Amino acid sequence: MKKIVIINGPNLNLLGRREPQVYGSVRFEDYLSGLRADYPDVELDYFQSNAEGLLIDRLHADGFGAQGIVLNAGGYSHTSVALRDAVAAIEAPVVEVHISNIFAREEYRHHSLLSDACVGMVCGLGMEGYRYAVDYLLRRG
Amino acid sequence: MKKIVIINGPNLNLLGRREPQVYGSVRFEDYLSGLRADYPDVELDYFQSNAEGLLIDRLHADGFGAQGIVLNAGGYSHTSVALRDAVAAIEAPVVEVHISNIFAREEYRHHSLLSDACVGMVCGLGMEGYRYAVDYLLRRG
Amino acid sequence: MKKIVIINGPNLNLLGRREPQVYGSVRFEDYLSGLRADYPDVELDYFQSNAEGLLIDRLHADGFGAQGIVLNAGGYSHTSVALRDAVAAIEAPVVEVHISNIFAREEYRHHSLLSDACVGMVCGLGMEGYRYAVDYLLRRG
Amino acid sequence: MKKIVIINGPNLNLLGRREPQVYGSVRFEDYLSGLRADYPDVELDYFQSNAEGLLIDRLHADGFGAQGIVLNAGGYSHTSVALRDAVAAIEAPVVEVHISNIFAREEYRHHSLLSDACVGMVCGLGMEGYRYAVDYLLRRG
Amino acid sequence: MKKIVIINGPNLNLLGRREPQVYGSVRFEDYLSGLRADYPDVELDYFQSNAEGLLIDRLHADGFGAQGIVLNAGGYSHTSVALRDAVAAIEAPVVEVHISNIFAREEYRHHSLLSDACVGMVCGLGMEGYRYAVDYLLRRG
Amino acid sequence: MKKIVIINGPNLNLLGRREPQVYGSVRFEDYLSGLRADYPDVELDYFQSNAEGLLIDRLHADGFGAQGIVLNAGGYSHTSVALRDAVAAIEAPVVEVHISNIFAREEYRHHSLLSDACVGMVCGLGMEGYRYAVDYLLRRG
Amino acid sequence: MKKIVIINGPNLNLLGRREPQVYGSVRFEDYLSGLRADYPDVELDYFQSNAEGLLIDRLHADGFGAQGIVLNAGGYSHTSVALRDAVAAIEAPVVEVHISNIFAREEYRHHSLLSDACVGMVCGLGMEGYRYAVDYLLRRG
Amino acid sequence: MKKIVIINGPNLNLLGRREPQVYGSVRFEDYLSGLRADYPDVELDYFQSNAEGLLIDRLHADGFGAQGIVLNAGGYSHTSVALRDAVAAIEAPVVEVHISNIFAREEYRHHSLLSDACVGMVCGLGMEGYRYAVDYLLRRG
Amino acid sequence: MKKIVIINGPNLNLLGRREPQVYGSVRFEDYLSGLRADYPDVELDYFQSNAEGLLIDRLHADGFGAQGIVLNAGGYSHTSVALRDAVAAIEAPVVEVHISNIFAREEYRHHSLLSDACVGMVCGLGMEGYRYAVDYLLRRG
Amino acid sequence: MKKIVIINGPNLNLLGRREPQVYGSVRFEDYLSGLRADYPDVELDYFQSNAEGLLIDRLHADGFGAQGIVLNAGGYSHTSVALRDAVAAIEAPVVEVHISNIFAREEYRHHSLLSDACVGMVCGLGMEGYRYAVDYLLRRG
Amino acid sequence: MKKIVIINGPNLNLLGRREPQVYGSVRFEDYLSGLRADYPDVELDYFQSNAEGLLIDRLHADGFGAQGIVLNAGGYSHTSVALRDAVAAIEAPVVEVHISNIFAREEYRHHSLLSDACVGMVCGLGMEGYRYAVDYLLRRG
Amino acid sequence: MKKIVIINGPNLNLLGRREPQVYGSVRFEDYLSGLRADYPDVELDYFQSNAEGLLIDRLHADGFGAQGIVLNAGGYSHTSVALRDAVAAIEAPVVEVHISNIFAREEYRHHSLLSDACVGMVCGLGMEGYRYAVDYLLRRG
Repeated sequence: MKKIVIINGPNLNLLGRREPQVYGSVRFEDYLSGLRADYPDVELDYFQSNAEGLLIDRLHADGFGAQGIVLNAGGYSHTSVALRDAVAAIEAPVVEVHISNIFAREEYRHHSLLSDACVGMVCGLGMEGYRYAVDYLLRRG
Repeated sequence: MKKIVIINGPNLNLLGRREPQVYGSVRFEDYLSGLRADYPDVELDYFQSNAEGLLIDRLHADGFGAQGIVLNAGGYSHTSVALRDAVAAIEAPVVEVHISNIFAREEYRHHSLLSDACVGMVCGLGMEGYRYAVDYLLRRG
Repeated sequence: MKKIVIINGPNLNLLGRREPQVYGSVRFEDYLSGLRADYPDVELDYFQSNAEGLLIDRLHADGFGAQGIVLNAGGYSHTSVALRDAVAAIEAPVVEVHISNIFAREEYRHHSLLSDACVGMVCGLGMEGYRYAVDYLLRRG
Repeated sequence: MKKIVIINGPNLNLLGRREPQVYGSVRFEDYLSGLRADYPDVELDYFQSNAEGLLIDRLHADGFGAQGIVLNAGGYSHTSVALRDAVAAIEAPVVEVHISNIFAREEYRHHSLLSDACVGMVCGLGMEGYRYAVDYLLRRG
Repeated sequence: MKKIVIINGPNLNLLGRREPQVYGSVRFEDYLSGLRADYPDVELDYFQSNAEGLLIDRLHADGFGAQGIVLNAGGYSHTSVALRDAVAAIEAPVVEVHISNIFAREEYRHHSLLSDACVGMVCGLGMEGYRYAVDYLLRRG
Repeated sequence: MKKIVIINGPNLNLLGRREPQVYGSVRFEDYLSGLRADYPDVELDYFQSNAEGLLIDRLHADGFGAQGIVLNAGGYSHTSVALRDAVAAIEAPVVEVHISNIFAREEYRHHSLLSDACVGMVCGLGMEGYRYAVDYLLRRG
Repeated sequence: MKKIVIINGPNLNLLGRREPQVYGSVRFEDYLSGLRADYPDVELDYFQSNAEGLLIDRLHADGFGAQGIVLNAGGYSHTSVALRDAVAAIEAPVVEVHISNIFAREEYRHHSLLSDACVGMVCGLGMEGYRYAVDYLLRRG
Repeated sequence: MKKIVIINGPNLNLLGRREPQVYGSVRFEDYLSGLRADYPDVELDYFQSNAEGLLIDRLHADGFGAQGIVLNAGGYSHTSVALRDAVAAIEAPVVEVHISNIFAREEYRHHSLLSDACVGMVCGLGMEGYRYAVDYLLRRG
Repeated sequence: MKKIVIINGPNLNLLGRREPQVYGSVRFEDYLSGLRADYPDVELDYFQSNAEGLLIDRLHADGFGAQGIVLNAGGYSHTSVALRDAVAAIEAPVVEVHISNIFAREEYRHHSLLSDACVGMVCGLGMEGYRYAVDYLLRRG
Repeated sequence: MKKIVIINGPNLNLLGRREPQVYGSVRFEDYLSGLRADYPDVELDYFQSNAEGLLIDRLHADGFGAQGIVLNAGGYSHTSVALRDAVAAIEAPVVEVHISNIFAREEYRHHSLLSDACVGMVCGLGMEGYRYAVDYLLRRG
Repeated sequence: MKKIVIINGPNLNLLGRREPQVYGSVRFEDYLSGLRADYPDVELDYFQSNAEGLLIDRLHADGFGAQGIVLNAGGYSHTSVALRDAVAAIEAPVVEVHISNIFAREEYRHHSLLSDACVGMVCGLGMEGYRYAVDYLLRRG
Repeated sequence: MKKIVIINGPNLNLLGRREPQVYGSVRFEDYLSGLRADYPDVELDYFQSNAEGLLIDRLHADGFGAQGIVLNAGGYSHTSVALRDAVAAIEAPVVEVHISNIFAREEYRHHSLLSDACVGMVCGLGMEGYRYAVDYLLRRG
């Protein structure tokens, strides 16, 4: 059974509660249930943390075995060379996802340090960005 | 019947022929046939031009009637305020697509002037980026 | 009979239809009729195109005979060295017009590549900017 | 009777005497006489000072009663946040005027801090720029 | 009983021990005792951590219930988009405090990413900055 | 009797009248009356001017005798090396105050040239910022 | 018979007529006649357009068959990623030519986006630059 | 009798009192007495003000009659386009003087906006800089 | 017995496994055994973590007792003011080590925020960099 | 007999030996022999030095007598104002040559300080660049 | 007998011959004769070289014995950290001289790397700048 | 017998004499004697020059035969593309050494143009940096 790991970074535990005009009002867990139902033959793991170090640990842990990783590193996307290095160090392909359109927001969100180490990016398509990232990782498998 | 328009910009007529290590070896028309087959109930229009002005004309022509537009403006993405204004001026939502991961290429490709006027972006997922953009535009419909 | 040529660039064919809170709700053709009525002894030519190349062609065609040219190059103002070279290459004086106040908008609209080759600029005064440009070109004549 | 106030900033008291190849050889007072004659039903007030603080004082004094203000802040245009704040703080609309084409001169003249707080700008049209600014403020009235 | 939470970031556990010429020689706990004595009717909670993730966790935990939060994020102030997002995501108002005058130190300390998401900032007033922040949050209550 | 001098710069004479959504609707004189009542044993002098030179003059006049100076230099904060030099040249400690959160406003307001010569800054806490600055100068006395 | 294609971009149709102090007073067609006479065994094709899209089309058309291409893209050299992509996408080697010394002109002419995709550049040697580019493409053949 | 005017800007009234480790402990008036004694046949006028506008007024007043002007504009040197325009607008040659070595101080003091409009600069040679400026203006006379 | 502490930051737990063409194929623990053997009279402690906060904690814990600290902060070197502050706050001298030549890699790796707070740096000499740092700290002891 | 001087700067003595994939495997002296044979009626002098000062000396020595100078200043092209001044100071026209395409190499090679003082540049055409420079200098003679 | 050494850098051997509209038509040796006559009790040594290394050698040779050094490093002023280090390494005070007004010339001449290591600068006063520098070094002696 | 060459650049002949608080008070020759004693089986050559060209000559002379080169290019490190090219052109590996911590000094010393062409760098470890560089070159041999 193929395994895809979804990793969410800082403040994404507040989804559905935080600034709903930007991020929508659906909790991620609820969205995930629907996604898992659409991919019954895939093991869809999920991890969220506000701690940069734990995100790196998790990338290391899954990065040499999973079929692919979907990563929304939130605010760390724009500041963390360490996370970028973790993405580059592992074997599993990583797709970067952002729920909102980071290019229509503050200047400092326009550049993600992770992007050049990832396979690609989906942004601005709301929660469905996760679906397309998962779908892509399964197809390229 | 819903209409989605795919608009490809400069040099994308060479797909399958140009730098295959970057863009793959499939012609866009062949990919499009498969995509149309997957969405039999949708009118999937396609337009390609190397001319900035004609791309703007087409955005105007379809921008007040189509369900959505998928736009890969190629090199114009990084230089054209005029195209960006066209995207902002029309009513149809536009999703930006790039076949390659523009963030892993030359510095001047890291910034797209179109992005903040589009709904979102899919990049680096190869031809499948078009599929996800079409799918998203139909779902949000 | 003196000839003044008004040249409008990309997206200005949508005037009255596009973002009326920015550009107002009057079609340019309607405004032009009024302007022509106020200057009955002047040949007021008008040209609009979304294509950079055609704008250059028109500047070449009128630039060695007209009394003056009023140019609103829209988004090309901020990106086109080629248009700027055309303005500098011709003999007729050119006045730059922008309907909205470009300095109160996005950063990339604050600089026009055309300005130093033009005689001067009127911006933010709505459609009336065209009137003042025409008036000035006739007075300096 | 409508009141329009023209405010000129530093060094503009030397008009007609200072660098005539840039600013022309007409004294402002002479130009103003002609302008007043063209608008007999308008009270056209005039104030000039080389002092930033007095310019702000005058904007405060007229900014809550006049129909509009025409402001050529000279060198302060490029350096004064305080003047810009005064323009933003008052109720009367302000049109910025520059006699010469500031975009064809030194780099540090290409950006005016006042512009985004003003309604619009006329530059490079010589003294006639004042006429168009007055005319616009009366029309929009 | 109103609750105000003071959150100190990295290296602030060394207060009184670290570079006393910059930060003084008083331990924060000692200062806090005095402050609590001055506000007997307020619950003054205190949390310190060197870990960015734990600081975010604590902002989430207190950010939907406390009357206000006083935040001295130390070095993370200048680098953390994730912390800034946490401040923006919660409901409680946050006042930023810096013991030293960050504007009289190294260039990279002159800009705090947190500032625009906070209500305001007190800096350079030594430990008393915490007092004023607490006082303000109680008054605005 | 200790003397503290509050110096307000350009446009602050409009407080209560100017952009109340940014600066509130209280006149400074009214706020000052309350503050004086809270510090009956202190001579609280007040000076406001829109003129940079007069602000410097006043800093010189009070800078060698007062217990401390509270300075809100408004727009000059961001542009005046001369004012900064005056602050550095005098003996009295100066605390910088801004009513609004300058870091949540335009880019050019994010940097104050005065800050490194002042003891510290209070910003974004509304009128109460003056209170804290006064209080601090008395405590450190 | 070997084919070399010379492609001239915007405003170069005005050669001999436009700013002769910069570009000389010879029409390109006249120069070309002489050049063809010097290379009787070579097919020297020539194409000029002011339209970016048509220049790209022509590069595509000749880029997979000609011995080499001499490209003077005029103002597009400094702004067009799309043209640069066309140069990179084709098989024929391209030599960039500028008649004037672009490095002794305005700042924005000092950088050509095309250069790194071309084989090399000749600039400032007047019309003879075309001769050397043709000669080089034949020698390397 | 030849007239040379020495104009000192903001904070230079504090010479001898302000930061003596930077500016020395001699009052300017005392230095000036000695200088006048060395040039008995020259009218050496002196003016000091902290107000930018008054400095401009004085440049206008003396700028069309004096043999030359020695200008130490203090902090305004680094920020005032208006003063620079005054220097350029007058006929008398102006030599810029700085007592301290501005290039060995803060970054923002390394650039003087006045310099390109002045004849030359003497800096870092203490009060004697005024002597050399006066001497030069007399010699070139 | 002298104590030297080696602290490795994020992703360095993957040494020998991660990008061997950049970092070599030796695990750090194996290298460390050899190093300890060469310095039998020194207590060579070792700590690795992917968490910024834990690295700071460890610097605090050892920074007031050890003879010296060897720090390879990996990706945090380029982004962490908090780590830099920890280095500056402790008493033990710190030598910065990088296995690869950071100056021959991506632009964002060319600047380490830690460097000015450390005694010095060894980079590009592979694992032996640790040896030289340890040796230096013992010699200067 | 006309004299053309070819001056090669630092490291060009290693041609044929240094990085042959960049610079080719022909020694310059061998190439020069062929070139001299093609121009039997011209005195083709040659000078190479790694010393900036000697290159300047040689420019001075030949710059007032030769028909023209071909200069490949190697690495000094990008850093030497002194060499540029020498080129500007002499009377002989100078053509700049680079063997490789400097625009396709490191960022710091994209700008040559010499270019605006030279007549023009040939780059990326290998050794033949010298031929074209010589030919041009003879034709313009 | 006091010794002052004047050191001139690259291209200054051409004085009187090179660009006389910028540098005048007097040879430096002629000027020096006059200067020596005005200071009969001073040993005025002179050295000129186009070689950076020789200039450094000379600074070392004279820098521990002379009363002062007058340095016009020409183009090296703007590029040479090595020369600046030599100035800082010696004991004799150095005054920087430029004949022309470097601030009214090209952008890259506006910044001298030497300035902060020198005592002061005289520029734009023609040859007389050397006189004032010598005079100052004698007075401060 | 293996040969390692140590090359010191400008001003390093003054070691022991120049700014001892920065560079220490030991002459390099004395340090070198000790180092040679520690490596009796190695030929340790030494060369110092203040001339950029001679340093390049020496790199060429030793760069194709020595086991390795230790290079402290002093101020040229930050400005010389020519030296960098010499390092890249030769075969011997080069280790860059700086006695002081260049990252804790002026901004312009933070970047060495040589670094990416060298194997690695040792800085801030005083004279011992040479030891480690020599040791490394012998081990990697």
